[in-house]
Amino acid sequence: MIEKRIRRVLDAMTQQGLTQMLVADPGAIYYLTGKHIAPGERMLALYLSAGGSHKLIVNKLFPIEEDLGVDLVFYSDTDEPVKLLAQFIDHNAPMGIDKTWPARFLIPLMELGAGSRFVNSSPILDEIRMIKDAEEIEAMRAASRINDATMGRMQELVKPGMSETEVGDALAKIYLELGANGGYSFDPIVAYGANAADPHHSNAEDAIAKEGDGVIIDMGCIHNSYCSDMTRTLFLGEPTEHQKEIYNIVLGANLAGIAAVKPGVRFCDVDKACRDYITERGYGEQFLHRTGHSIGLECHEAGDVSSINTTVLKPGMIFSIEPGVYLAGDVGVRIEDLVLVTEDGCEVLNHFPKELKFK
Amino acid sequence: MIEKRIRRVLDAMTQQGLTQMLVADPGAIYYLTGKHIAPGERMLALYLSAGGSHKLIVNKLFPIEEDLGVDLVFYSDTDEPVKLLAQFIDHNAPMGIDKTWPARFLIPLMELGAGSRFVNSSPILDEIRMIKDAEEIEAMRAASRINDATMGRMQELVKPGMSETEVGDALAKIYLELGANGGYSFDPIVAYGANAADPHHSNAEDAIAKEGDGVIIDMGCIHNSYCSDMTRTLFLGEPTEHQKEIYNIVLGANLAGIAAVKPGVRFCDVDKACRDYITERGYGEQFLHRTGHSIGLECHEAGDVSSINTTVLKPGMIFSIEPGVYLAGDVGVRIEDLVLVTEDGCEVLNHFPKELKFK
Repeated sequence: MIEKRIRRVLDAMTQQGLTQMLVADPGAIYYLTGKHIAPGERMLALYLSAGGSHKLIVNKLFPIEEDLGVDLVFYSDTDEPVKLLAQFIDHNAPMGIDKTWPARFLIPLMELGAGSRFVNSSPILDEIRMIKDAEEIEAMRAASRINDATMGRMQELVKPGMSETEVGDALAKIYLELGANGGYSFDPIVAYGANAADPHHSNAEDAIAKEGDGVIIDMGCIHNSYCSDMTRTLFLGEPTEHQKEIYNIVLGANLAGIAAVKPGVRFCDVDKACRDYITERGYGEQFLHRTGHSIGLECHEAGDVSSINTTVLKPGMIFSIEPGVYLAGDVGVRIEDLVLVTEDGCEVLNHFPKELKFK
Repeated sequence: MIEKRIRRVLDAMTQQGLTQMLVADPGAIYYLTGKHIAPGERMLALYLSAGGSHKLIVNKLFPIEEDLGVDLVFYSDTDEPVKLLAQFIDHNAPMGIDKTWPARFLIPLMELGAGSRFVNSSPILDEIRMIKDAEEIEAMRAASRINDATMGRMQELVKPGMSETEVGDALAKIYLELGANGGYSFDPIVAYGANAADPHHSNAEDAIAKEGDGVIIDMGCIHNSYCSDMTRTLFLGEPTEHQKEIYNIVLGANLAGIAAVKPGVRFCDVDKACRDYITERGYGEQFLHRTGHSIGLECHEAGDVSSINTTVLKPGMIFSIEPGVYLAGDVGVRIEDLVLVTEDGCEVLNHFPKELKFK
C-alpha cells in the first residue's frame, strides 16, 4: 500500500517535470511511511527524489526501528538539519516544498541555494491523498460510527443550566468510552443561542444553556489515525416558528448538497447546490462560510467544498457538507455530515438523525 | 501591557533596521493583541509597520468586536489573503517573516515581490517574549501549581496491570478537576520500564505496568493561556541498585542545573552543569537531548537550554531543566522542573517532591 503511494507521487512529480520534493507535514509523512512522528518544533523532512534515493531526516530523539522504505538520516539537537538536508538536494533543479514548511527552515534553505527555484509541491501529494483507498475508507467509516454514537450521548447530556465548557469537556471521556483511540480531530464546539450565530465560537464557561436555546454541537474524533467531523443543532424546548424556519432551510441545504454529489460534478457545484437552496429562501448572506472541506488523516485536507474550487469529484473522495445560517444576536444552525463519493453518487458516513429535534 | 509589548517590538525592529514585519503565530498574535484566534489552515497575519499602521488580516469567520489597537482587515474564503496582505507591504524594503509562516503563503508572497528581501524576524519577538512580565509570571506559577497537584494524583493512580494509555487518558479529567482551563500543553507521556528509555515514547495500549518498572510521567496543562511542564520518575516496587544509581545521577543533574541558574550565566552553562554531572558519572552518551526549553504561552518557546545556545540569562526568563538518562532496552529516568530566573538565582516553579520514590 505504502509503496504504491510513493510510486504514485513519483509518477505525478515526473508528469509535472519535478525531480525532487520535500514532504514535511507529519500527516503526509505518515501517509508515505506508515510512521507517526510528532517532531514538535524540530525539523522532520522526507526528501523524495525521482531517482529513487529518498531520505527521511529526523531528530535522533525519535528512534525508528522499522524499515520505512526510505533511508534514515538522524541528526542531534546540536546539528543544523537544514544544512544536512541541503546536501541531498540537486541545487540545479527546481525544488518542491511542502506547503506547511515554516519560514524558519525555508528561508535558510533558500539562502543555501538548495534548488534552482522553489515551488509549493504539496498539490501533487494532496491530489493523491484526496482519493482514499479501501483501508482508509474503512477507517473513516469507523471514526464516523463512533462520532454518531457520541452525538447521542452529547445530546442526552446537554440541558438548561449547563455551561458550554461543561458540555464540551464531557466529550473527551465519552469518546474514550466509545472507543475512539486518537482524541479530538479538532477542539469541539458547543454553542448556545446567539453564540451559535458565530460559526467559530469558542466554548464559554459563562455561557449557560436556557430553555429556548438552539445548541450547536460540532465535534470529531480521531480513530486509527483517521478523522470524523459532524455537526447537529438541537433545541432546548420547542423551537419558535422562526427557529424552525431556519432549521429546515439548513436541513434542506444539507440534503441538496448531498444529492448533488457524484463523480464528474465539481466541488463548486456541491457548494452551489447548498448555497442556492439557502439563497432562494433569503438567507444567502447569512451562510458565512464554504460548504465543507476534505478530510482524512487530517481534519482539514486539500479539497474545499467552495465556490472557487473547480476540481472534479472522483470516487474515493471524502468531504464534509456543512451548510449553516447565522443570524447575529439571534440564532445559528449548522448541519454537517461526511460523504464518500461512490461510483454513482455518495455514501453518507454519518447516520445520526437530522430531523428537527427538541428536548 | 499590550501597548508596551508592541512598543518594544517596534523599538527592536528599528534597532535592527527593519521597517516591517509579519507576525503569524497565534500565540504571538495573542501576546501582541490579547486575542486568541485559532485560524486552522486559514491565513492569520499581523503586519507591523515601524510607521505605526498595523493591520490584522483575518478571515471573517473569526469576528472581532474588541479594539485590539490595530486595524482589522477581514477577508472571506473566496478572497486571496496573500494578495491582500501584499498591498500593505513596502515592496522596496526588507520584509520580516514569522518563523512559523508556511510555504503555501510565503512562496506566493515572494512571487508577488512583496519585500526587497525576506528575513526571519521572529527572533525580535522571541527575545522579548523570553522575559516574562509580572502577569505572565503569576500565570506560570498557577499552571505549575496545578501540575504539581496533578502529579500526585497520577502517581497514586498508576499501578501494575494498567496500560500506559489508560493512565495517560486519566489525565484530562484530573486536570479539569483541579481547575486547569486550557487542556494539555502537549500530549502527555506515560512510559514504563524499557519504554521510558525512549525520551519521546508514545503511550501504548499494550504496554502494561509491572512490578519493578520505572514509570516516567511527563505532562503539562495550560491554565489561563500559560503552560506548565514537569516530569517525574516513580518506581513500582523497590528499585534495584542499578535503577537507584541512574535515578540519583539524574536527580543530581537536575539539582546541578538548578544551582547553575542566575542572571549572567548562559543557557549553555546550565546545559553544561547538568551534562557534566551525568558525564562524570559515566552516562553522558545516554543523556540524549538538550537540557530544556523556554516555556510560556507555548510549551516550547525560543530559548533552548542546550550546548549551542550562548544567550545570557536574565530575570524573568522561564525554562525547563529536564536531564535524563536513557539505557535502551533497560531503564529511563527523567526529572524535570520549570525555573524562573530571579535577580540572584532562580525560583523553582514545581514543588512536587523528587527524591527517589517507590510504591
